[in-house]
Amino acid sequence: MADQYVQTLDGEQPPGPGSLRWDELPEGPVLVLLDQRRLPVEEAELVCTDVPALVDAIRTLAVRGAPLLGIAGAYGVALAASRGYDVAEAAALLEGARPTAVNLGYGVRRAAGAYEAAVGRGADGQRAAAAVLAEARQLHREDAEASERMARHGLALLDELLPGGSHRILTHCNTGRLVSGGEGTAFAVALAAHREGRLRKLWVDETRPLLQGARLTAYEAARNGMAYTLLTDNAAGSLFAAGEVDAVLIGADRIAADGSVANKVGSYPLAVLARYHHVPFIVVAPTTTVDPATPDGASIEVEQRSGQEVTELPAPPVPATVTGVTGLPVPRATEAGSGLSGPPVAPVGTQAYNPAFDVTPPELVTAIVTEEGVVSPVTGAGIAELCARSRQVTIS
Amino acid sequence: MADQYVQTLDGEQPPGPGSLRWDELPEGPVLVLLDQRRLPVEEAELVCTDVPALVDAIRTLAVRGAPLLGIAGAYGVALAASRGYDVAEAAALLEGARPTAVNLGYGVRRAAGAYEAAVGRGADGQRAAAAVLAEARQLHREDAEASERMARHGLALLDELLPGGSHRILTHCNTGRLVSGGEGTAFAVALAAHREGRLRKLWVDETRPLLQGARLTAYEAARNGMAYTLLTDNAAGSLFAAGEVDAVLIGADRIAADGSVANKVGSYPLAVLARYHHVPFIVVAPTTTVDPATPDGASIEVEQRSGQEVTELPAPPVPATVTGVTGLPVPRATEAGSGLSGPPVAPVGTQAYNPAFDVTPPELVTAIVTEEGVVSPVTGAGIAELCARSRQVTIS
Repeated sequence: MADQYVQTLDGEQPPGPGSLRWDELPEGPVLVLLDQRRLPVEEAELVCTDVPALVDAIRTLAVRGAPLLGIAGAYGVALAASRGYDVAEAAALLEGARPTAVNLGYGVRRAAGAYEAAVGRGADGQRAAAAVLAEARQLHREDAEASERMARHGLALLDELLPGGSHRILTHCNTGRLVSGGEGTAFAVALAAHREGRLRKLWVDETRPLLQGARLTAYEAARNGMAYTLLTDNAAGSLFAAGEVDAVLIGADRIAADGSVANKVGSYPLAVLARYHHVPFIVVAPTTTVDPATPDGASIEVEQRSGQEVTELPAPPVPATVTGVTGLPVPRATEAGSGLSGPPVAPVGTQAYNPAFDVTPPELVTAIVTEEGVVSPVTGAGIAELCARSRQVTIS
Repeated sequence: MADQYVQTLDGEQPPGPGSLRWDELPEGPVLVLLDQRRLPVEEAELVCTDVPALVDAIRTLAVRGAPLLGIAGAYGVALAASRGYDVAEAAALLEGARPTAVNLGYGVRRAAGAYEAAVGRGADGQRAAAAVLAEARQLHREDAEASERMARHGLALLDELLPGGSHRILTHCNTGRLVSGGEGTAFAVALAAHREGRLRKLWVDETRPLLQGARLTAYEAARNGMAYTLLTDNAAGSLFAAGEVDAVLIGADRIAADGSVANKVGSYPLAVLARYHHVPFIVVAPTTTVDPATPDGASIEVEQRSGQEVTELPAPPVPATVTGVTGLPVPRATEAGSGLSGPPVAPVGTQAYNPAFDVTPPELVTAIVTEEGVVSPVTGAGIAELCARSRQVTIS
């Protein structure tokens, strides 16, 4: 583990430093990650010079978020190829880092496929490595472009639904640059509204149990100079009752063929509150989130996570042990330092119900915004049409 | 502050040790509190021998909960009278310990009034002290009796609404023995169902930001051998969607004349979820919670608390510095040790929206259960009738 080191960013960076970048240093190529374990306490970059270092970063949540994991995995394969390591072994290591992360496997296999194709065409190691890097960059670019297009479609939808242009938006979990190759999904729409001077307020749910809202979305909002206010998840009700929410914008982990949306736990109660108060409930996600093999909400298997995330407080963000210096090794982050574990708050032996996400049925979703356009009302046919358009674009 | 000391209870106590008791020791009378700051880590009693010690215990949340504060305040006046301190000065100190706690002022004034009446009748110090103690005991007894009657009425209502007798009840915040002279309000109903073998599950909301559900309700449920499961507040939605909740039972901080219910933040979203899923939403509170001077929900002023409760994690429960020994002084609890402050999770400068409670309109409340009976449907006339009955009982 000598191949991972940290460098601290100063405050002079442009708003929202990239979550990840490829860099060609004199001593060889590296993958540079914004270390999410240290947010919001500090912005530190983690420099990975080999695949085991990246695997460790993925395991300890230094890098996280579905699309971003796919991009990181693809660059990881490029790192192995560029530095002359065994690419198949590297791909297997990366895929195993978080076995349930669908996008990670997708990115890794896409990059490894590019390597094999190049070798199959008779390319030497250097040329094959260049082909993998090009594929990783292509994936990265596609994701950034999808963000841009979702932001554009989402903002147009907001302006249509809420004439007057002074939006108060409630969001849940983290859906910005920290999960994406671009500016994210739901957060990217709010950011576009902010840049156009049409965001009056971003209400940020803290998002128990792991507090991605408090830690990461508040960080991204602050970094971009947005007018934001944090709240406990259960305080959203009185905001709705007071007429302080104009729209809810959330992301999605998976969208079933009928338009049912699986997303971070706490999304469904917001959908019910939004319906009760006649407030639009908008889901923003790329078409790759749609899973045609899942027919409906009932078919979505809900992952149950460890009760310790509820019975123990999250550990405070890990402070950097080495700051302002490059080239020095950093101690491995422990599980306790990954935001998953801390002092107990409930009696010993307490059982907890801790689903990772919940499922919102299509009838409670006002619209689904994708990079290909908007589905509203949400129907299986409408979703299928957008996905077909997306595939056509990819094939052409 | 040498007049407060701790004694640790062993595990052989009957379920749910009392939250507070008057004790006559050879060296004089004392008020013994279950130190709620140390729950659920350990059950330690805090022995107060004078009013400043009790004021400190109230300020640092060693004792809390509306009705219990009133009882503690009354016993505090009795302590001053019994030990020959200035009663008026003691009453002023106690009332100022938490100026916004309505019940504290009520209990203190009732006890001080009994002292003055006795002195006015020509009683000597000892007799006047006995009169105050009798008044405090009467208040304590009234509250315990009200708990018993609410539990009886509430269980009958559950049995009527949910034939079959295998109830899965969701509750929020802490409404048991720790806030009451008896077994509490909503929790007392669930406990009665448990004792009759008719409670299948108690779902316990953790209740952010101060986690009274995780810390205190889970403790009371465990202490009573109830089948309980803890959840983050935002996970309640998927429980409703899965048909896992038969009824919601909560307490109340204040009930307006029209039946609007102010209670711990997070109650209102549960009411909306309950309505959407056709689940009864039941409020359990003594008639003293009804405030006829507040005509409706809009007239209830919602207390905004410090954003630090949201931007910083709650501090872990204070461990006892002295255990198993009586008669030794304990260091003063700091603010950081009172459950109000801990490591930051959000970026520096983050603003938070942190209302202490929210307001549920009467049309979302299935029934209000009081010691005088049940109001359902909830109407101003129905509430006024119960309150009149309650006053009649007190006068007769």
